[in-house]
Amino acid sequence: MHITVINPNTTRAMTDMIGSCARGVAGPGTRISAVNPTMGPASIESHYDEALSVPGLLHEIAEGERAGSDGYVIACFGDPGLDAARELAGGPVVGIAEAAMHAATLVGRSFSVVTSLSRTVGRAQDLVRHYGFADRCVGVYACDIPVLALDDPSTGAAQVIIDLCRQTVERDKADSIVLGCAGMADLCSYISAEVGVPVIDGVSAATKLVESLVTLGYSTSRRDEFARPLPKAYVGGLSAFELVD
Amino acid sequence: MHITVINPNTTRAMTDMIGSCARGVAGPGTRISAVNPTMGPASIESHYDEALSVPGLLHEIAEGERAGSDGYVIACFGDPGLDAARELAGGPVVGIAEAAMHAATLVGRSFSVVTSLSRTVGRAQDLVRHYGFADRCVGVYACDIPVLALDDPSTGAAQVIIDLCRQTVERDKADSIVLGCAGMADLCSYISAEVGVPVIDGVSAATKLVESLVTLGYSTSRRDEFARPLPKAYVGGLSAFELVD
Amino acid sequence: MHITVINPNTTRAMTDMIGSCARGVAGPGTRISAVNPTMGPASIESHYDEALSVPGLLHEIAEGERAGSDGYVIACFGDPGLDAARELAGGPVVGIAEAAMHAATLVGRSFSVVTSLSRTVGRAQDLVRHYGFADRCVGVYACDIPVLALDDPSTGAAQVIIDLCRQTVERDKADSIVLGCAGMADLCSYISAEVGVPVIDGVSAATKLVESLVTLGYSTSRRDEFARPLPKAYVGGLSAFELVD
Amino acid sequence: MHITVINPNTTRAMTDMIGSCARGVAGPGTRISAVNPTMGPASIESHYDEALSVPGLLHEIAEGERAGSDGYVIACFGDPGLDAARELAGGPVVGIAEAAMHAATLVGRSFSVVTSLSRTVGRAQDLVRHYGFADRCVGVYACDIPVLALDDPSTGAAQVIIDLCRQTVERDKADSIVLGCAGMADLCSYISAEVGVPVIDGVSAATKLVESLVTLGYSTSRRDEFARPLPKAYVGGLSAFELVD
Amino acid sequence: MHITVINPNTTRAMTDMIGSCARGVAGPGTRISAVNPTMGPASIESHYDEALSVPGLLHEIAEGERAGSDGYVIACFGDPGLDAARELAGGPVVGIAEAAMHAATLVGRSFSVVTSLSRTVGRAQDLVRHYGFADRCVGVYACDIPVLALDDPSTGAAQVIIDLCRQTVERDKADSIVLGCAGMADLCSYISAEVGVPVIDGVSAATKLVESLVTLGYSTSRRDEFARPLPKAYVGGLSAFELVD
Amino acid sequence: MHITVINPNTTRAMTDMIGSCARGVAGPGTRISAVNPTMGPASIESHYDEALSVPGLLHEIAEGERAGSDGYVIACFGDPGLDAARELAGGPVVGIAEAAMHAATLVGRSFSVVTSLSRTVGRAQDLVRHYGFADRCVGVYACDIPVLALDDPSTGAAQVIIDLCRQTVERDKADSIVLGCAGMADLCSYISAEVGVPVIDGVSAATKLVESLVTLGYSTSRRDEFARPLPKAYVGGLSAFELVD
Repeated sequence: MHITVINPNTTRAMTDMIGSCARGVAGPGTRISAVNPTMGPASIESHYDEALSVPGLLHEIAEGERAGSDGYVIACFGDPGLDAARELAGGPVVGIAEAAMHAATLVGRSFSVVTSLSRTVGRAQDLVRHYGFADRCVGVYACDIPVLALDDPSTGAAQVIIDLCRQTVERDKADSIVLGCAGMADLCSYISAEVGVPVIDGVSAATKLVESLVTLGYSTSRRDEFARPLPKAYVGGLSAFELVD
Repeated sequence: MHITVINPNTTRAMTDMIGSCARGVAGPGTRISAVNPTMGPASIESHYDEALSVPGLLHEIAEGERAGSDGYVIACFGDPGLDAARELAGGPVVGIAEAAMHAATLVGRSFSVVTSLSRTVGRAQDLVRHYGFADRCVGVYACDIPVLALDDPSTGAAQVIIDLCRQTVERDKADSIVLGCAGMADLCSYISAEVGVPVIDGVSAATKLVESLVTLGYSTSRRDEFARPLPKAYVGGLSAFELVD
Repeated sequence: MHITVINPNTTRAMTDMIGSCARGVAGPGTRISAVNPTMGPASIESHYDEALSVPGLLHEIAEGERAGSDGYVIACFGDPGLDAARELAGGPVVGIAEAAMHAATLVGRSFSVVTSLSRTVGRAQDLVRHYGFADRCVGVYACDIPVLALDDPSTGAAQVIIDLCRQTVERDKADSIVLGCAGMADLCSYISAEVGVPVIDGVSAATKLVESLVTLGYSTSRRDEFARPLPKAYVGGLSAFELVD
Repeated sequence: MHITVINPNTTRAMTDMIGSCARGVAGPGTRISAVNPTMGPASIESHYDEALSVPGLLHEIAEGERAGSDGYVIACFGDPGLDAARELAGGPVVGIAEAAMHAATLVGRSFSVVTSLSRTVGRAQDLVRHYGFADRCVGVYACDIPVLALDDPSTGAAQVIIDLCRQTVERDKADSIVLGCAGMADLCSYISAEVGVPVIDGVSAATKLVESLVTLGYSTSRRDEFARPLPKAYVGGLSAFELVD
Repeated sequence: MHITVINPNTTRAMTDMIGSCARGVAGPGTRISAVNPTMGPASIESHYDEALSVPGLLHEIAEGERAGSDGYVIACFGDPGLDAARELAGGPVVGIAEAAMHAATLVGRSFSVVTSLSRTVGRAQDLVRHYGFADRCVGVYACDIPVLALDDPSTGAAQVIIDLCRQTVERDKADSIVLGCAGMADLCSYISAEVGVPVIDGVSAATKLVESLVTLGYSTSRRDEFARPLPKAYVGGLSAFELVD
Repeated sequence: MHITVINPNTTRAMTDMIGSCARGVAGPGTRISAVNPTMGPASIESHYDEALSVPGLLHEIAEGERAGSDGYVIACFGDPGLDAARELAGGPVVGIAEAAMHAATLVGRSFSVVTSLSRTVGRAQDLVRHYGFADRCVGVYACDIPVLALDDPSTGAAQVIIDLCRQTVERDKADSIVLGCAGMADLCSYISAEVGVPVIDGVSAATKLVESLVTLGYSTSRRDEFARPLPKAYVGGLSAFELVD
């Protein structure tokens, strides 16, 4: 099985870390390709960044289709372009926010999200509601460390996140924590050991969900909404995205 | 006051029709610019099209800012890029789905949406929930006529839409109808006369809402989520979207 | 266009202030009549007051109809008698709580309400849910200053309200503030300047919404629920409210 | 124990029937007073009628307080003036829609409402949501017989209602039926025998609920919202409603 | 009328106290049998305990049916086995959580629950949502005293509960308190006197609700879901539960 | 890895079929034990059956713990005893309704459930809401074939189910189908081929979810609610369930 894990920002080091996390949980017969677009923002920290990450993301889906990929992970916590990616991909597509929240509801009643910048809290709340977990999510907190600084030891990100986790477990009675940024994936086991409740990384959770869906033979329904987009004219700087029958 | 109405697809004829509808309701001191991107899809009929309309839309917001526009209408019923546009624009931004649904709740308890292709029904339902109107929306129906064929008389679009409107008023007890596509804007008064309940066009509704917000002095809160996006590197085909301080 | 702004309490000074706020935002072709009932409570600070303000309010609607009014604002934050007024009026009717909350959702994700007495908090919460904005409202606070004392400088109302606004912006991450009493309308711009997020006054917001609906040609649906009430016998002290065919 | 059952319309024959139904279920030590206002509408079939029934209803509450009543039933399915009545009454107050819906949820998962005129369906839906039973109510239907004609044999009301009950049990899988008008109270047992699922009359249900609350020693919380209304000036035709300390 | 009050744990002293509370509110013609299973846990403080209390509870329902009981109270705040009991019993069955929450919504807008151990908070929240009262419940707190120690004076349970009640009234603006454990039934009036808002005990509330339903002639709908269970083979240690036609 | 799949009814043939389905999707390093209780009902078709399946189910969990099982599947669509099982098991526990619904939301916007007897529809609706998927589930239908007759060719179960699937896809626009009974697991691929949208079997979906959670190192949070039950006295026929420290 071949799963493509797409980091929608253009920072290769983060893509490598994400790929490594995915490979750490993939089954023996699963090959992981970790890729990122060559166009768009270096990190995703606003609705603007997120919207502009989607063309590059969709290009990577199209590349994955040509390469015969069986399924896809979208490795940014805003789950950018998920619905569009599902129209385009033959196999299943799962976002890391979606995957982490689903996993959280299987290991406890309540969860909190700890994300990067406070300006992304709203998007996380949107997704919580969209996926149906408004009754289960008891808090969304931001560590206020930029995405690309999370693995810079000088920011002390792990400790800041651990402190937020402990606070929300104590104050909000969270049964588990969802890490709200792909850039936190490699901190997950360290944080988990300190916090004492499940700390869930969406990159690895999504990888297992996609792998499971492929094994089960389930992919996106083609009934109507998620059928392949209709071919039509695309012009200007995005004309390469024109689909043909 | 200067309001920019953005048709996010690249079809100039549709932009002209939309501009004309907006001008028909704008106040005496309001100037309407109707624009469309020069990159992206000719029409928006899938999540894929919608995602790929957003870069062009954001470019038009940036252009509007340079031209001193006081507010913006996003004239596609999926309200594409609305959150990102709010980060970028100094003045208020309103989507036509949002505007039409708000208006509908002010003239009755219940409304139905009549949209273009059935594959767009899901997006309309998403927006209904997102805007808080799940208890008010009693039906979402599709006329199954492509966006760019709506004003082709040979499709008989107006009559198909009128029939759907009558059905949902009868079956679902809808107090009003929301037209689910900017391409229906110029059919609104004709349909309304036939159906006997308010039939709401989002283009004109959004134009009045933006005009009202500008007069009232209210624009998007800059508290945190909708503050101007942080500057950062943008590369490749989208490098023109890089913001600077 | 002629819009009647009804202050449902019997305090003329408050009516004058409300009328002045409405005129401050009305378009050049809009005439504002600010009226209040001659029967009922001097201020509305309980469910009891609110219920007993409605007969006088409905009388003013009937008077407005005779005078050819095109639309109505109900200028009390409990939106008293709104559904009944919609049955009676030929043109659109908008409540100031409704208008302010709608406006708030267009300028940010979250809002808080700052109201007068704490005993009115429950009614504000009721309206938040009724209008569909339970996910958007992050707090309802009371300044605990009586309605008629809000513009008495000795109460320091503006400062108390400003302090509450700042607290909820900080604690609840409110993107905007909705002022929960018509008696606060003239404090709005002063408070807004101090607080740094949009502070929304329902009187002016409702005035613009009614004006917009009239321009758009939308009024209350007459399909069934909001058709004109059936004529029938009214007796006793309220016999003047009997409608005839 | 003394319970006052208030028919908020001014039709004495209906009051007598309601009183009879209440007495039929009251405990041995309970005295039922059935009263109606001497001002207001002869029947309640619109928001307008409902709003104008409330002053008379509140007058009856005040009379009941003077007479030492221990609790109150509001015997109109719109539950008019319920919150205001709770502020005014020393003992518990229960509306018949509220009571019937509560009872319905105790005898099955789902219920439907069968009401009088179709224009009242919206109010019933409002109450369903307000009381928390949106997930439990699977249908609201109208027999389209005016309130005062329900017990006119020539309208065949019982049979029309029975047919609607059978339809909703079959189509919507309703476990029980809530009768949506006090004027149907005396038809309840006859309908129930024909329909084969519990058919719930709010007048008798509310009588037992009030009796239970009085026995249990529970009355409306005086914490804040439902404390006695503040005294203040009332003028004009409603000056008799002025409260004093 | 004969009502069987079932304490689903096996602690006879608690059963006696519960029976005494039920008898204290029952009408003159009502006989109360207070029973408990002879198999299962001594107290119910986990999902495990609750699940294993149900066979014994169902046995008591079957015994009650043989003895001609007219209705049943399930006197544990988790409302264990309620749906199964409704299938088995000819008369109405009400749980004490259900009864207390229904009562709370009739005496105020908001309530809080004060329960025994913190590990039971989740179950209480589940029930709040299941019964439709998520908008009304403003807090669930635990006194962290085991069920069987609540009436041991050395634990000071009453004072701990009073303190929690006062805190939630102050902080959460709770209009009333629901006591979240049958073991608190006899503390109710003492706590209530100290707290100043209605404090609701589910045992007495459920007793009155069952008595009311029996008087009203309403029992569980037999339409489909709650019809008598189909007979089938039961084996092993639970073979005595096999039903026959 | 060792996963125990528990069929909570006592019918060994069904257990064997379930085990076979689980083994068909398990990874190469995963050993599946398929077990069923030796006490309780032969099939689960009522709340009564479901409640009485739980002791046997919990016994199998305890046996699994002694045997070193890494995780558990509860293979009955009512997800009986799930919360109690989570307290008892060291590893993750997933119900098949839960698993199937989670999977359905990953492959489309909407799903319908097709279950066995109509009396179980209510329980399925309960679970839909409990898991957060009320907005996603567009229908619950029953084939009205008893659980143990589903694989009796003379009942034509597969064709009846296929017809229901096609109807709900057409009428309700379901993107996928969730099979609402473990007894349908072996029909899944046949039905899926006929229906043309994803048809999801919870047994295989839950097996992959448990396997994924074990690989990811996530198990039930021990924070509070799902910590191991407190030891206490258990008496009578269930004394074997007493836990010791």
